[in-house]
Amino acid sequence: MKALGTHLLLELKECNPELLDDLEYIRNSLMEAANKTGATIIGQSFHQFSPQGVTGVIAIAESHLCIHTWPEFGYAAADIFTCGEGFKPKEAALLIVGSLESKDYSITEVERGVLPASTYSPIKQLSQ
Amino acid sequence: MKALGTHLLLELKECNPELLDDLEYIRNSLMEAANKTGATIIGQSFHQFSPQGVTGVIAIAESHLCIHTWPEFGYAAADIFTCGEGFKPKEAALLIVGSLESKDYSITEVERGVLPASTYSPIKQLSQ
Repeated sequence: MKALGTHLLLELKECNPELLDDLEYIRNSLMEAANKTGATIIGQSFHQFSPQGVTGVIAIAESHLCIHTWPEFGYAAADIFTCGEGFKPKEAALLIVGSLESKDYSITEVERGVLPASTYSPIKQLSQ
Repeated sequence: MKALGTHLLLELKECNPELLDDLEYIRNSLMEAANKTGATIIGQSFHQFSPQGVTGVIAIAESHLCIHTWPEFGYAAADIFTCGEGFKPKEAALLIVGSLESKDYSITEVERGVLPASTYSPIKQLSQ
């Protein structure tokens, strides 16, 4: 059976550290990635940490986008969960990669909700 | 180097379908799981879908908890991202399993932000 959802895990290394510590930039990057690729935003929460770092979660009609940044390491972890056909999560992922200027990234796809339970590995490496 | 974050992916099958379609129950379950295990909630957004299903995202000082439910399949996908030591994500995961009355679940742990890049597999199956 087809998976109910697709979950992309983004490892974003060698990003621009200044951008990673800019809450409005991070918020705009994720909102723009969602909007440009067909997602419908229904809720969001972004926070600046002290001394540095940003966390953001966006609920979309198609599921969610989240990000957590570590400017001190030039690193951000993002994930995009989607169900349905309208939203293009891989395009959204690449927009986020570009906006954070990541020079070393990977995107891992995890199929979610494969029913009935099967024994195959749900992990597939998309790019590195 | 130690990972910056730990990401738990919860596949929750054979849940109680009525609970999966009850927004307040889902919200309370996640909030309680976060609060009881040391997380500090800083933002949240929950939504009821028509004809059924709930999406919820919680931003915590330690990162995030998200859930998406498919009552028609008795299935929910949740994920818990954490950094730092205070919050106990595996305990939170088991509280969510219990609250949704899942009879068939798995919890997969993914290490996030392992710097510098290494070649080992970040995937470890915790339970099934």
